[in-house]
Amino acid sequence: MEQALTKWIDEYHQGVRYGLEGRVIVNETSNYQEITIIESHRYGKGLLLDGCWMTAEKADRHYHEPLVHPALCGAKKIEKVLIIGGGDGGTARECLRYKEVKQLDMIEIDNRVIELSKQYLPNIGGMAWNDSRLNLQISDGIEWVSNSIENSYDVIIVDGSDPIGPAKGLFNKRFLKNCMRILNKDGIFATQSESPESFREIHLETIKLIREIFNCSDTLYGCVPIYPSGWWSWTFATKDHPSYQYPMQTRSKLIESQCDIWSPKWQLGGFQAMPAFIKRELEK
Amino acid sequence: MEQALTKWIDEYHQGVRYGLEGRVIVNETSNYQEITIIESHRYGKGLLLDGCWMTAEKADRHYHEPLVHPALCGAKKIEKVLIIGGGDGGTARECLRYKEVKQLDMIEIDNRVIELSKQYLPNIGGMAWNDSRLNLQISDGIEWVSNSIENSYDVIIVDGSDPIGPAKGLFNKRFLKNCMRILNKDGIFATQSESPESFREIHLETIKLIREIFNCSDTLYGCVPIYPSGWWSWTFATKDHPSYQYPMQTRSKLIESQCDIWSPKWQLGGFQAMPAFIKRELEK
Repeated sequence: MEQALTKWIDEYHQGVRYGLEGRVIVNETSNYQEITIIESHRYGKGLLLDGCWMTAEKADRHYHEPLVHPALCGAKKIEKVLIIGGGDGGTARECLRYKEVKQLDMIEIDNRVIELSKQYLPNIGGMAWNDSRLNLQISDGIEWVSNSIENSYDVIIVDGSDPIGPAKGLFNKRFLKNCMRILNKDGIFATQSESPESFREIHLETIKLIREIFNCSDTLYGCVPIYPSGWWSWTFATKDHPSYQYPMQTRSKLIESQCDIWSPKWQLGGFQAMPAFIKRELEK
Repeated sequence: MEQALTKWIDEYHQGVRYGLEGRVIVNETSNYQEITIIESHRYGKGLLLDGCWMTAEKADRHYHEPLVHPALCGAKKIEKVLIIGGGDGGTARECLRYKEVKQLDMIEIDNRVIELSKQYLPNIGGMAWNDSRLNLQISDGIEWVSNSIENSYDVIIVDGSDPIGPAKGLFNKRFLKNCMRILNKDGIFATQSESPESFREIHLETIKLIREIFNCSDTLYGCVPIYPSGWWSWTFATKDHPSYQYPMQTRSKLIESQCDIWSPKWQLGGFQAMPAFIKRELEK
């Protein structure tokens, strides 16, 4: 009976908390992490992993649109796309808006995240779960990139949680080198790169590491209201040319009308919005 | 004794809460509003008005730099500047970085906000409180703009709280028309314009109203971690040319090195970062 009452469900982070009013529907521990599904007044149903906000029905676009569209609108070819993580289905949904995508490999380590997302957050994955182009593998993304052959993906998207728990190995040199190796010559690598405010050190380290391995890289800034501080970033990289900065009109015109946040102009702004204190640190 | 213990101090807004861990130092009701001063682990001492986060020692620049520098770097002349509100002193501090500013009229309605800010948050106002160019008036900003003579200010900055309580009259046509009237031909008007996420309707109404009254206006987007959703905006307007978009190098070079957030490039990005859902509403 208690679970029917609304209460505050908070993420705690370094003396700050962000909470949504609602009720907990599911709270279980999988082989990898604690998974919580809630129903909130403000953003509908939502997902937390290890007590950290991941997504919510009415707040998923702030995160998924900026992660996907600079890569999918910018890459020369987008026939074969890889997602590492992304268990809620939002990244797959955005990728599959593009008819040019022929094969979408999605490698999620935790089957329970997929099952619970399908059951309680069906709109976040939407049509993606039934799209024949989706090749869903319950497997370790780190192993997957290590075992994939060279130049085999047009776009690689890393959609992991914070670099503690199962996502830890997604922020290191070996993993990134494998991503670089399996990416096509004109391909684009994309990853969430944490908050300049609440994960300042990890944010800086991630950018530095990506810049070290890829020849070309830029960071896009935006806001995800349910994440710590609201201020978030995504980093894109290629082997030579910053094609993620130049959305192809033929694609962007079709995509823009379906987006809540993203547009070519919004993206142009986000790529220039590095705050002064981060720029200064990177120039040291 | 109880006040010495740390606890969570939260702002509640539409089923969302944002809290800092700390302790309450002062909680009193002035003639205008409830004023709370807290000491937090994350951002040092902070100020709430009517239970809403206003500023904090280590999080004030996210808000004050974007409000001030597009106007002060962009206006042809910046000798005479008006601030409506701004009782914590942060806006005045940023304005007085410019040697060209000869007179800064600051009109704050609530003397207790000034007194408590000076006592508990002295670093936010910094040198501003003792600067001979500061003409501080405890008075109603709405009356002040109504009584000021035509073309008398080079820059007008509205630094009010949300449009409930004492700041209510700062978001209407009569007030804005007076601002337009007392602004010099080449002057710049600047105001905080709320969050596209958590104050969507007020944000849209504010932009529409400013566009109706001024000939030229644009909105800048950024992040203020302690405000609802973290996503925030500032709107700038002039009588003809969008000079706030073009920071003068002679000024910006001196200012940039003192900023945590703002830079000419950051600003260029922020002015392009209107989210798709707001753009669509404004085009209706």
